[in-house]
Amino acid sequence: MSNGELQWIIPDGYIPPDSSGQLESHESICVLNLNGEEVTVTVNAFFEDREPLLGMKTTVEGRRTKHIRTASLQAEGRFIPKGVPYAMEVVSSGPVYVQYSRLDSTQAENALMSVMAFPVKE
Amino acid sequence: MSNGELQWIIPDGYIPPDSSGQLESHESICVLNLNGEEVTVTVNAFFEDREPLLGMKTTVEGRRTKHIRTASLQAEGRFIPKGVPYAMEVVSSGPVYVQYSRLDSTQAENALMSVMAFPVKE
Amino acid sequence: MSNGELQWIIPDGYIPPDSSGQLESHESICVLNLNGEEVTVTVNAFFEDREPLLGMKTTVEGRRTKHIRTASLQAEGRFIPKGVPYAMEVVSSGPVYVQYSRLDSTQAENALMSVMAFPVKE
Amino acid sequence: MSNGELQWIIPDGYIPPDSSGQLESHESICVLNLNGEEVTVTVNAFFEDREPLLGMKTTVEGRRTKHIRTASLQAEGRFIPKGVPYAMEVVSSGPVYVQYSRLDSTQAENALMSVMAFPVKE
Repeated sequence: MSNGELQWIIPDGYIPPDSSGQLESHESICVLNLNGEEVTVTVNAFFEDREPLLGMKTTVEGRRTKHIRTASLQAEGRFIPKGVPYAMEVVSSGPVYVQYSRLDSTQAENALMSVMAFPVKE
Repeated sequence: MSNGELQWIIPDGYIPPDSSGQLESHESICVLNLNGEEVTVTVNAFFEDREPLLGMKTTVEGRRTKHIRTASLQAEGRFIPKGVPYAMEVVSSGPVYVQYSRLDSTQAENALMSVMAFPVKE
Repeated sequence: MSNGELQWIIPDGYIPPDSSGQLESHESICVLNLNGEEVTVTVNAFFEDREPLLGMKTTVEGRRTKHIRTASLQAEGRFIPKGVPYAMEVVSSGPVYVQYSRLDSTQAENALMSVMAFPVKE
Repeated sequence: MSNGELQWIIPDGYIPPDSSGQLESHESICVLNLNGEEVTVTVNAFFEDREPLLGMKTTVEGRRTKHIRTASLQAEGRFIPKGVPYAMEVVSSGPVYVQYSRLDSTQAENALMSVMAFPVKE
């Protein structure tokens, strides 16, 4: 039985710069690791007008999920800028499942969107 | 003709703890059973910081759908906690189709999101 | 080059019974027909607690799209009831692409959700 | 390792004609180009009641993303009309990944929806 894929793509990344109301605007990369062992997840961000920001790493324990706030990711002190369109490649050291969700609270009432990330099959 | 898959994954589970306005915040696992016979659907929940909650079961009659409120699922009296990020594995005794939707009414105005669950092909 | 699939599944159907604000609550089955000829699209609805409503038909011209309001579909004078969870099977006489979207304006502010329907490969 | 597909389908296109609140209603076709070289992306629009609008072109640099506002696309001075249901075929000169998102601010509070475009495999 498969435990997922090693590479997933999310073309529409965007951290809303503003929040209002009760909840904070944010994006989450939701990873499910059904393996027995921890995996290392590397997120690479691609932009419209600048060089990619590569190698933002985190780990997900075995038989656990992690809902990763994109604003928390970094590589050598560099973070994904807010208010800038970008895209993500998610690469894992072991097979996982990945979903992407965004909460936009620019206005006081919330807006939600979610997609399953696109699996790359080798 | 295929009637679906036996295993589906939903990495972004979250039962919003608050509701306001006319509708209650909730998630639904929407299962379509095109077979002639009833299937048993088992939902396993995976968390960020605790052991999985396995074996929450329900049934779906043949040629019927069931839109399962995640807050209604339980295994030996244990329920999925509200306000906690988690992920789901949905395993069925016969092939089915699965979609996941969330209504968030934390604010008075509603926010909706929906994804097709990710099918695991054996 | 493929022009799509003959059968698509949408497990989470629901026509919101209430509308407020500027727009009316509705669901749309969006069909793209890239073939040269018209296709006939048959929608079958499956419920939680009653027999399926089968054989709701419409046509989509060649090299055209049609965004079908589910509330407009009928078979022998029977319509999909509002406010009832259901699921859909969409069967086409020729290959097409299908997306499902819902606008909920139960509250004055709108909520949107959309999924690509799930293709059945024979 | 694959860098995506050459053809993607989005059946539910619609540019909301009205905006209110802080953000403007719009749709985006989000393209990720993981290749080393620039690709040319051609968008073809299909309607319910008129001839297709073909050949709207743009480019995406190598190792870059572009979030393309559909209202900005044109072919020989013809644009996609607002407030009209349509569908899109996205054809690229090299493999890419495509996601579609819509922000509707017809009401002051925002509504969001997003889907991964449907890949056509040849």
